[in-house]
Parts: sequence; structure tokens; C-alpha cells
Amino acid sequence: MSLINKNYGLLPRNISDKKNIDSFLLNNNNKEVVVIQGLGFVGAVMSLICSNSITNDYAVIGVDLPNKDTYWKIKSLNEGVFPIKASDPKVEEYYLKAMKKGNLYATYDSYAYSIADTIIIDINLDVKKKTDDNNTLNHYDVDLSSFKKAIESIGKICKENVLILVETTVPPGTCNKIIKPIIKNCLQRRGLSNNKFKIAHSYERVMPGPDYIDSIQNFYRVYSGIDEKSANAAESFLKTIIRTDKFPLTRLGSTNATEIAKVLENSYRAMNIAFVVEWSRFAEEAEVNLYEVVEAIRMRPTHRNLMLPGIGVGGYCLTKDPLLASWSRQNLFDNNEGLPQSVNGVRINDKMPIYAYQFMQKELESINLKDKKALMLGVSYRSDVADTRYTPVETFYNLLIDNNCEVFLHDPYVSFWEEIELDVLAEYEEIFNNSLDIVIISTAHSEYVNSQKLLELFQQQNNLFIFDAVGVLSENEIKLLSEKHKVRVVGRGDIS
Amino acid sequence: MSLINKNYGLLPRNISDKKNIDSFLLNNNNKEVVVIQGLGFVGAVMSLICSNSITNDYAVIGVDLPNKDTYWKIKSLNEGVFPIKASDPKVEEYYLKAMKKGNLYATYDSYAYSIADTIIIDINLDVKKKTDDNNTLNHYDVDLSSFKKAIESIGKICKENVLILVETTVPPGTCNKIIKPIIKNCLQRRGLSNNKFKIAHSYERVMPGPDYIDSIQNFYRVYSGIDEKSANAAESFLKTIIRTDKFPLTRLGSTNATEIAKVLENSYRAMNIAFVVEWSRFAEEAEVNLYEVVEAIRMRPTHRNLMLPGIGVGGYCLTKDPLLASWSRQNLFDNNEGLPQSVNGVRINDKMPIYAYQFMQKELESINLKDKKALMLGVSYRSDVADTRYTPVETFYNLLIDNNCEVFLHDPYVSFWEEIELDVLAEYEEIFNNSLDIVIISTAHSEYVNSQKLLELFQQQNNLFIFDAVGVLSENEIKLLSEKHKVRVVGRGDIS
Repeated sequence: MSLINKNYGLLPRNISDKKNIDSFLLNNNNKEVVVIQGLGFVGAVMSLICSNSITNDYAVIGVDLPNKDTYWKIKSLNEGVFPIKASDPKVEEYYLKAMKKGNLYATYDSYAYSIADTIIIDINLDVKKKTDDNNTLNHYDVDLSSFKKAIESIGKICKENVLILVETTVPPGTCNKIIKPIIKNCLQRRGLSNNKFKIAHSYERVMPGPDYIDSIQNFYRVYSGIDEKSANAAESFLKTIIRTDKFPLTRLGSTNATEIAKVLENSYRAMNIAFVVEWSRFAEEAEVNLYEVVEAIRMRPTHRNLMLPGIGVGGYCLTKDPLLASWSRQNLFDNNEGLPQSVNGVRINDKMPIYAYQFMQKELESINLKDKKALMLGVSYRSDVADTRYTPVETFYNLLIDNNCEVFLHDPYVSFWEEIELDVLAEYEEIFNNSLDIVIISTAHSEYVNSQKLLELFQQQNNLFIFDAVGVLSENEIKLLSEKHKVRVVGRGDIS
Repeated sequence: MSLINKNYGLLPRNISDKKNIDSFLLNNNNKEVVVIQGLGFVGAVMSLICSNSITNDYAVIGVDLPNKDTYWKIKSLNEGVFPIKASDPKVEEYYLKAMKKGNLYATYDSYAYSIADTIIIDINLDVKKKTDDNNTLNHYDVDLSSFKKAIESIGKICKENVLILVETTVPPGTCNKIIKPIIKNCLQRRGLSNNKFKIAHSYERVMPGPDYIDSIQNFYRVYSGIDEKSANAAESFLKTIIRTDKFPLTRLGSTNATEIAKVLENSYRAMNIAFVVEWSRFAEEAEVNLYEVVEAIRMRPTHRNLMLPGIGVGGYCLTKDPLLASWSRQNLFDNNEGLPQSVNGVRINDKMPIYAYQFMQKELESINLKDKKALMLGVSYRSDVADTRYTPVETFYNLLIDNNCEVFLHDPYVSFWEEIELDVLAEYEEIFNNSLDIVIISTAHSEYVNSQKLLELFQQQNNLFIFDAVGVLSENEIKLLSEKHKVRVVGRGDIS
């Protein structure tokens, strides 16, 4: 999955799109209008799910900003190319259906909010992290100003009985303490009723990859409202887009509760990963194979969520949600303690690629990386997705570069690494003819697992240092490769 | 479950029990001899399981020390009363069968080791924890001297081809770095072969309560040996006592690996509990019901092991195993870092009863506890067991006492609280006639869940402060009780 960047010509700032929106509305006469604010990884797919509602026929408008980074998505969506390239075939299928029905449109014009019955908030809310040279988290902060601005752009023009459904991961307390007063004040200033609007919170559990659509449509959902009418409205709406017969909805008592649920959920996962980090290093020292230890323990149902060793944590959620939660406790609930245990989970995970690198260096012994040639297999943060946001591979890559190692990058899903603006190879065969010294498996893509091709290439070489940072090599592969090469695996001290 | 203390007369120090052991052996002619070192919560039950082996007919001897605290167990076992009172009916059943067969004997005489084919180590290995007044862990240490002495007592007299199977939770590295050299040296000094002995490690996953026997006999097991012959011998032996057809054994690569597995397993659980602690307090502040949040999140298979709020962690394992592991990394593997994340889990859990007390105090507002009368329902650390070792209820109880509150204790399973030498009531009705002010539910015993009796007693009273520290009250009960009383629940800020 990746965003397809396109030429977009001039940015339409200060130019109205009202005419096109009105004409879209005319073609979708009498339909309820759903507007999605934010066409990122969640919003874009939500627009497909809404335009292919299970029970209703909505007119769906996606809104994003007319900026250099976002306008091309609007143009692309309207011109017949869905802006997210996904391995899930349902994405293209849903998009083509919507285009055929003509009930999906994208715009940059906030005029769209004025005709919306339901507005879904899918914009980002970032945490600013400050880390030192050693990737140690020193400071974090949340700036709500652009989020507030986005909510104001709705309040200035929305219907007085609109349903605002927040899907963005927000600091707990946001719906009640931030969004509600903004909307209320805007409506008051506009001389409209200030007790008809509805604000609800329901977070998605989207999983980029082959089940992209299903991870929203065929999965459990938690929701809540700032009052009962809001919760009821959200429930009615969610039933039109999610298969609630198979995956019943869960209503929680307040928006604080669902907002906490989202960040707690991701903090739990981040913490589970962080928990294993020091054990991974202990296993390396104690000549233990931590993978077999974890597998043995996972037989207990009470221990199924125990995680495996690896190179680190990436993506948009686990790397920041615990901080968002801690910031909320400090700033919206006035408890300076924050959530130190969960924050520490992020701090530990941030260090994982450093530890992996240190383990590699120790095993390389006296070998200097200077002028050595290394191939990294995988740059995305997760197997079989093309998402490179906050990938731990970046930290590891930078350490190689800092030590004057020459690095080739391969990834079957990523052709251009946007964050550091680098081309990524689609094939790795040729690199092997290039007197390679080191091969690092850095993402557990299926293509690298039990790969006959890779095995053959390895066997044609001599004296490679093969470093499996994600534990994909099998016992047999390790045994076979160890005959000609030095093989090391993160979390395994039993190989020597 | 509790240990049945009995009068034992004079302690038989320096008196040989050889005659009785030889006579027991004569009655169990030609049987393989299994000796169990340590008749505590694990060893005593292991002696039953071995004397009721699935495939073999063993002669089983339990060994413990002729001390004030342990000798009564030996006497009791030999005189027809199994020393552990358990809610699992299989315990009594297995004991009676063994007594009838006459293949179970208990002794204090280490002479037993000399006739053993297999010796199972089930003695305790404690961590010394130092905490300040506020129950904050400041220091911890492990003293191996008495453990080493116990191993030496075996080495001095054991057969040269003995199988020593360690079940004690030990600092990783113990089998290889501590036990193996002791046994080897002892045998050498005795002029015996030093390469025929076998040392294996296989930890139990015993769960005191109604499935006491099954938690050993019908459950997964991990095992390993210091060499292949040791691992093979352990495998053969375990197959005679565990239903490995239903619960296959898992062999790990080294004793370091299984030793790490045990403490990792318990550290994971301790960490999962610790993770929720700060969220519980956040929920209390943000007027959120954390129980419903956790239930909603647990619907995800990746999040099933998420824990609920509560009063704290007790028992012999979770309160110390992470420290044992950290101590091992520092002292047996020379890495001063230890395992700070896991140690911090223990530190957080130790504070739970303090937090519960602080929450109660805050909700009590201006009410002074001095001369108030409180009833605590439950003193054991876990529902439906009688185990009070390291129960968090003790910390909570002490805070009440320190504040001059008059406290009555009830527990359906515990009649005498050994650690603080207090009588515990078996009935609580009368206490309600005693102008009670506060009722604290401190253990989630089934007897307190949906209890009609308790509800009726509550309804006969006025203006109680009911503090549910373990989340057993249902929504309906809370609603009903709130009409006449003030009800508060740990981890719930939504009740006011």
C-alpha cells in the first residue's frame, strides 16, 4: 500500500468548488450526505466504505486541504485513480463501484461541510517527539492548534443537527473538552440551536495490508457519544457501514472512555513489545533462543499475546499513542504524573533498532563497517505492507551510513522511501554480484520467508555476514547457511 | 488450601530415620525410587502425583527439614493426614490411594537421597525485598547459600547415575553454573564417576485451587537438560506423571532456556498487571469505567491478555520472579543492567494496595478513619484459594490499622492469617450488627459475587461506605446499593 503521488498543476487556493459540489449533490438527489474530513490511510478507505454502505445509499464527499502534499489525492480520486495503492483487492473493487454509481466525490472546499448530515473526522493528530542522537526519547508534546482549526472549519458552516463522528486518535478528553465547546460556540455565534448537534467517538482498528477494507467493515467497534442522542446517532450510522450482525458494536459510557480505549489498546501492544526487549538481550547473552522460549510460553492462553524479538516498532500508532495518552492526563486532566510506564514502553521500543545494531556490531567483532557493502531486505515497518512511516529500519540504516557502510535497499512493496527520499530496489539478485559483505533481513516480508531464491543466492557466495533482525530464518536455513557464512539472529544467543 | 499445622513433639534432629526408610523400601521392593526434596505447595502435591504415576509404580519419598516449621508436615503425611488442605477433591483421593498402596513416605533424613533414582527439587528459593514505608521497592537480593546446601546434601550421598529434576524457580543459569559443579565435585570427591549424573530443569505451572492436581498433571510442560542424556531422562520421567498425550512436552535447547522461560512467563503476567495500574488511576480521574474499556478491548485476540484493575498482586511467584531474573542477569551473567523494565513491574504492583487505599481515602473525603469500624471481605491474594503469602490485602489492612480504624476480617478459606498471626472470621453476619462504617471487598471470592446474603445485609444498613477494590459488584448491585450507601470501585471514576 502506498500513496500514489501525481502531478497536480496549480493549487486551487481561494477558488470555490461550490459549483461542482452542487452538481454532485444534484446527481445524488435526496441522498444523505456523508463528508469525510481527511483523505489519509483511514479517511480515503472510509470514503469507499461509506459510498458502498451495506444498507444505505449515501452521497459521499472526501475533503482534504489544497496543499502540495494533499491536493493530488483529491484530483486523483476524482480522475479515476484511487490515491492509495493497496494489496487488498477490495479497495479497487469498492472504488470502481463508487465511481460507477457516481456517489463519491473529493474536494478541498469546506463548503462541503454545509451540506453534510454526517461528518467523519479522519485527520491526523501528531505528537512531536524529541530524541537524542542515540534515539532516546527526551521530550514529547502535542499541538492541538491545527486540529482545532479543522473543527472550527466545520463549526462555521455545518448544519445545526449534524452528527460529527470522530475517528481520529485523540488525547482522551478531546471530544468533551475541545470539540464540543468549539462546535457549541460556533453554532451560538451563527444564531443556531446549540443543543441539536451530535458528537460521537468511534475509533477504527484499521490494519494496512491484504485485509484493509475488512479491518474496518468486518471487525469489532467501540463507540460513544457526548450524550445519549449522539451515541444513538453514531450507532445508527455505524450499522450502515459495518457488519454488526457478525461483529456487534460495543457502546461505552462516555467519549472519555472510548478515547481512553483507543490509546490504551495501542499502548498495551507497544508495552507487550517493549516487555520482550530486555529479555531478548538477556537471551543473546545467556546463549538462549528466545523464539523457542516465547513459543513454549504462548501455549498458555493467558500468555498468547507475548511478543517475539525484532528490530523495532514503526507505523503511525504504536510509536505515539502512549504519549498522546500521557499528554492528555497531564494537560487535560491536570495530573502531572502522566502515564510514565506507557511512555517508557515507547522509549524502549525506540531503542530497539539501536540494540539490534549493537548486537550485530558485537557479533561482527573486529570487522570495521567502513566501505563494506550491505544489503538490507525490507524497509517498511511491518511485513507485507508498504508503509514506511516511522519504520525502525530507518534508525538501523542511518547507523550503517554513519559508519560509512555502503547500503543497498530492497523492498517488494516500496519503490521510493518517502521519509528519507531514497530509491528502493525491486530486485536484489544483481546486488549479490557486487561483492557483498553483509545481508540484513530487516522486515519479515513473506517474500523473504522460506525463500528458495534467497537461499540459492546465499549459497553462491562465501563468507557473508547474514544478520536476521526479524527472526525469519528457519533452523534448517540457519544450519545450511552457517556452513559458508556467519549467521546471527536478534534474540538468539544460541547460534555461534 | 492451607497447611494444616499440628503438634509434633520433639524435633528429631540428629536422629537417623534409616530404619524406617529401609523398611519402606523393603515393602516397595524393586520399584524405582523417586525422592522429592521440599514438601511445600508444589512438592507435597508432586509426591501424590508421583505415587499415582500414570504408567509406573514408584516408591516415593518426600523429604523436608526437621524444623519447627516443616517437621509437622512429615509427621502428618505419615500419620494419615495430607498436610495441605485443598479445595481440589483429587488431592484427598490421590493421597488415600497412595496410603493404601503404601508407596508414599515422608522423612527428614537425607539418607533417602542415597536410594533415589530420581530426585525432584521443590524447595523454595526466596528473594529478599526491601521496601520503604510506602511499600516502594528499594532493594532486592538473592541468597543462594541454603539452596546450595540443599544441593550439597544430595551430592554427598546420591547415586552416580541419579536424575536430578529441578522444579524450583531459580535464577537463570542455576542448573549449569551452580548445581552442576556442586554435584560434579561431590561425586569426584566420593571417587565416583562424574559423567553419569543427569540434571534437568522442568518447571511446574501449578495453580492452587480447585484444579490443583490437574494444573500439574493435565497441563503443558517445558523441560531441558544440561546435556542430551539428561534431557532424555527428564522426558522419560515426565511421561510417567503427566498426560503428555493431551499436553505434549516441549524440549528447549538448554537449562538456561527453560529457567528463563519460567521467570519470563511470570514476569509477563506481572507486567500485564502493572501496565493497567496507571490506566486504572487515569480512569478514576477521567470518570471512566475501566472494566468496560478492558472488556471492549479484549474482544481483539491480540489483546486477550489485558488485565483488569484491582487491589494488587500476591502469591509466591509474580511478586519475586522478575527480581530473580534481574538478579541472575546481574550476578550470573555479569550484566549490571539487570532487567529494569520487569523489576519496575514488581515495583508498580507492590504499590497497588497503596493506590487503592489512596483512592478510597479521596472518596471518603473528610471522613476520618479513626475509630471507624471496617469489615474486610477476603484476605487471600487470589479468589477461591486460601493462600495469604504476600497478599496485597496485608498492605491495605496495615494502612487501616495505622489510621486507627477498627478492622474485622472475613475469608471463607482462611481461618488464621499466618503471616500476621490474626484470626479470620468464617461468618460476617454478626459484624453487620456492630454499627459498621465501611465494608471493603478485598478478594474476589465466588462467595462475594452476586451474593444475595451480602445484598440483604447491606440493605438492612444505612450510610455505609462500600469499597469494592476488586471489581466484583455488578451494575445492578451498585445501582441498588447506591440508594442507601456510598459505593466506590477501584478503576471506576464513573460512579459518583
